[in-house]
Amino acid sequence: MPILATTPTLKISSHELSQIRQLTELKSSSGSHSPSLTTMQESLPDINVAIDACYLSNPLATDLFWKFFNSDVQMDDQLFRRIVEAYPAQNANIAERLAPAIGVDSSRILMANGATEAIQAIIHNYASHLHVNVPTFSPYYEFATPGHQITTFQSHKEDGFALDPVQYVDSVVKSGADAAILISPNNPDGYMIPRGDLNWILDRLSYLRTIVLDESFLHFGLDAPPGVLPSLVSVTEAYPNVSIVKSMSKDFGIAGIRAGYAVMAPDRVKELLDHGYLWNINGMAEYFFLLMTRRNFITEYLGVLREYRGAVSRFTARTANADYVTAYPTSANFQLMELPPGLPADLITTLMLVRHGVYVRNCDDKIGLDGEFIRVAIRTEKENHQIISALEDVISSV
Amino acid sequence: MPILATTPTLKISSHELSQIRQLTELKSSSGSHSPSLTTMQESLPDINVAIDACYLSNPLATDLFWKFFNSDVQMDDQLFRRIVEAYPAQNANIAERLAPAIGVDSSRILMANGATEAIQAIIHNYASHLHVNVPTFSPYYEFATPGHQITTFQSHKEDGFALDPVQYVDSVVKSGADAAILISPNNPDGYMIPRGDLNWILDRLSYLRTIVLDESFLHFGLDAPPGVLPSLVSVTEAYPNVSIVKSMSKDFGIAGIRAGYAVMAPDRVKELLDHGYLWNINGMAEYFFLLMTRRNFITEYLGVLREYRGAVSRFTARTANADYVTAYPTSANFQLMELPPGLPADLITTLMLVRHGVYVRNCDDKIGLDGEFIRVAIRTEKENHQIISALEDVISSV
Repeated sequence: MPILATTPTLKISSHELSQIRQLTELKSSSGSHSPSLTTMQESLPDINVAIDACYLSNPLATDLFWKFFNSDVQMDDQLFRRIVEAYPAQNANIAERLAPAIGVDSSRILMANGATEAIQAIIHNYASHLHVNVPTFSPYYEFATPGHQITTFQSHKEDGFALDPVQYVDSVVKSGADAAILISPNNPDGYMIPRGDLNWILDRLSYLRTIVLDESFLHFGLDAPPGVLPSLVSVTEAYPNVSIVKSMSKDFGIAGIRAGYAVMAPDRVKELLDHGYLWNINGMAEYFFLLMTRRNFITEYLGVLREYRGAVSRFTARTANADYVTAYPTSANFQLMELPPGLPADLITTLMLVRHGVYVRNCDDKIGLDGEFIRVAIRTEKENHQIISALEDVISSV
Repeated sequence: MPILATTPTLKISSHELSQIRQLTELKSSSGSHSPSLTTMQESLPDINVAIDACYLSNPLATDLFWKFFNSDVQMDDQLFRRIVEAYPAQNANIAERLAPAIGVDSSRILMANGATEAIQAIIHNYASHLHVNVPTFSPYYEFATPGHQITTFQSHKEDGFALDPVQYVDSVVKSGADAAILISPNNPDGYMIPRGDLNWILDRLSYLRTIVLDESFLHFGLDAPPGVLPSLVSVTEAYPNVSIVKSMSKDFGIAGIRAGYAVMAPDRVKELLDHGYLWNINGMAEYFFLLMTRRNFITEYLGVLREYRGAVSRFTARTANADYVTAYPTSANFQLMELPPGLPADLITTLMLVRHGVYVRNCDDKIGLDGEFIRVAIRTEKENHQIISALEDVISSV
């Protein structure tokens, strides 16, 4: 919507207005995703992004990865050159080595060049009609081909975006879909389906050809026994129509590496390997997956996960009682916030960027969100204070 | 075939025999590709691979990449961390920046996670019946789904694996295929289709839905004007059914990065972007593609390409008159060699590895090769001497 028409009494400089226009243009040319930080900084060199609160990762885990990588490179000065120069191992070989860390048999694992590749592989091969609950992560409908039918189930802000299992199953059945998509915790609202609800849903939907269960944000919401990575992968053994999709970018803060996987019935993995997905893992991703097999890395990771979840809790405790936004409860490492009436999300996100260098996600393009919403990634303790201050400042000043 | 039955008087130690068995097992579990160097060294730690002559890259270009990367990292100590942590730009954005370096409009470029992803995308979306000339690079038939039909055109060793244009076009037409696959120079034989033949073929096959023209090895065979990267991408403008496929692994020696692209009609690129292939470029690959847009990198690259092509010529001059193998003429950076009667390729490749640490490609699994063949990657001057010595030694000793 036109910014100036909505808020006629804005106090912005002409330079800010020019930046707002440039950002609008950049965003509209990026499809349904925010422009990457690099793309944005190249297009608008005079905007200094101090905090990337679009990026949904655990920053402490990036530090941990960095620590291990640098130490390994120091121990073996040819390591990084080999990573760049040599062909990585094949998909199935990496799956075999990774299997114990994930806790399923390697025959169930399809390694992927980021979770998006796994999503694409599943949707293109094992679904013709997708039932998607909205709002959601857009690749789930973007990767559909013209041959796919898509129907939706709407979750509501009035319920905190909770998924009512009975209504949901009813909606899937009535849609006639052969595939259902569930993200838990869901992006952009952070709602995690309780385990009891999930089992009830999977039981009723066992007739479907495919259920995609995306657990990319599960580490931030699910409690697991000590020493164990939170995961739902074991449900694929009881429900052969379920594919678990997992991104490594969020938990481990390594989006640039493009590392993900899916866990599903062995016959599907075999079929997908036979049709391609052979050499899709790059050298850095292979290094990362082997890191996951090292006990000391996992132990330290679980430590930084605990620490980060503490920061997430303190952030949401502060926003829960905020009067300047409506912050929805979240089981993920981000929070969906609805802006006060009359404040457009594109204006608030732009002013946060221009005035404070804080880059948050404008949710204007999210299908199924009724109102003006932003999604804020929760970062380090220090950054979280700055994010909240910037938000308070911008909202109170317009 | 059983090694011992073929050559009853072998002089090999029992330790060598055990290594031969392990290698056979490893190879048979790797499908139609050689196990990666890492996979092999992990499985057989007591084999020391001194020279990887399976790996079809320009090693001088790897050095050059390394030089630029290290210098950039020294100038900007956050560069590598950003590469790992941040989401890379989207496919279309990278294509836009790369377009001037490739010499086509960005609307024609599909960025790919290695050439194999581009091959898979084209075959799965724009072909139902593939006509493949054999021997060839196996993904061209491996990525076919059960719904694809495959027919073949056989090139012959007696002709130096030359592609007769008239016979080839006749074979495509008679096959009823909707898609033809051409690799030039071809892998594994190194035959490059002369430009006149190619134009004649493309004219006659303009009725096909799709022609894949893989130019991954073209830098090693085609001469281009000073300052220009050798390429056939411009043919996509005259022939809208042609898709050029390009791997960066060979020219630039960076297989671990997984960088490739395809150039094709803009409507196909748009369609593929709409169906996925959105975030398939990892941070290191993005860095590499931006390096390709820097004039000084391309200038230095063309220098090391010239130097390497000199080493390739000196290698083939030595093998041309060899009496221990039949070495076929090549326009690529590898050479296909036929072994003397009675010497199985699996034995020779294994003994070269076990006795000399030289890893060459056993071509037993290549469809359409009649005889015992190995494919030898041409490396640095010094390594090439060792490769030839190892080959002479092993063949003369069995």
